[in-house]
Amino acid sequence: MKILAISGSLRRDSYNSKLLRAAQELGADGCELELWEGLRAVPPYDEDDEAGAAPAVASFFDAIAGADAILFSTPEYNSSIPGQLKNAIDWASRPRATAPLRNKPVAVIGASTGMFGAVWAQAELRKALASAGARVLDSELPVAAAHTKFDEEGLLTDHEIRERLRGLIEELVSVAEPAPVPA
Amino acid sequence: MKILAISGSLRRDSYNSKLLRAAQELGADGCELELWEGLRAVPPYDEDDEAGAAPAVASFFDAIAGADAILFSTPEYNSSIPGQLKNAIDWASRPRATAPLRNKPVAVIGASTGMFGAVWAQAELRKALASAGARVLDSELPVAAAHTKFDEEGLLTDHEIRERLRGLIEELVSVAEPAPVPA
Repeated sequence: MKILAISGSLRRDSYNSKLLRAAQELGADGCELELWEGLRAVPPYDEDDEAGAAPAVASFFDAIAGADAILFSTPEYNSSIPGQLKNAIDWASRPRATAPLRNKPVAVIGASTGMFGAVWAQAELRKALASAGARVLDSELPVAAAHTKFDEEGLLTDHEIRERLRGLIEELVSVAEPAPVPA
Repeated sequence: MKILAISGSLRRDSYNSKLLRAAQELGADGCELELWEGLRAVPPYDEDDEAGAAPAVASFFDAIAGADAILFSTPEYNSSIPGQLKNAIDWASRPRATAPLRNKPVAVIGASTGMFGAVWAQAELRKALASAGARVLDSELPVAAAHTKFDEEGLLTDHEIRERLRGLIEELVSVAEPAPVPA
């Protein structure tokens, strides 16, 4: 079971990237979580460029195709999805019938230093992913006051959030696993 | 009175760009509407880069500072704002206290080939712009079935939409104009 982990923030000390590293460490049995490093390189989506998409887009599509599920962690910019993250979704939703995100199991979590833990960005991201044809988990995991939830090494120290994160990964894995063949 | 016109679509034959060219042609008395061509060049927003922002970002900030108001025309991608347009908003909302969008009068219109005329993208864009501190007009102008509303030269042929567009520009101009000094 391979899960692609995508952080919506590009800054070096991003809490959302730290949250995904915590998910990586918590893991689930037989589940490998890979952090995607390609977000910055994705060019602006342009329908005219779909036929000859840039290498960064092709490599994004390969990363999605090679994963059984995707875990997004998003900050909130102006009460919504960070533009560059949404731009990557826009690419991966095209062309509609054979889009990389189509039928892909995905889950969304998010962290912010504010009181709400990026809930609006998470809701809008779930909406956009569903619109792109992905199989979106209803669960959300808002990490509010994120600056108080990690230690100096960037490790997630909040016990409750660790447990909720573990549960959410297990839920994503169970959705992504093929149903057992009846005996 | 100068209005900066920003299309959320990068494709060559974009209906949203055509809609802004119609706005340019309709105009309002003493009002100059300039189409912004810089969207594609804006790099991915990264808080770490705020201090030394790219020339494309600086030139975007100059374009906003030089305008009395902004008219956005947005398509809808995955039921929301196109990522690259949102990414430009993310830059222009920073730093909060002195952000280029702060207190700027803005209006949002949008076109799609579907039945709803990008209403969700328009609503989310208004929300993001308000969150960035802009003075956002409540009015919306959804242009549905956009492929039936322009002629072969790309001119807006729908009379009702032309009139609504004219009205919306006049409303934006009246908001952007300083109130007359009482005698």
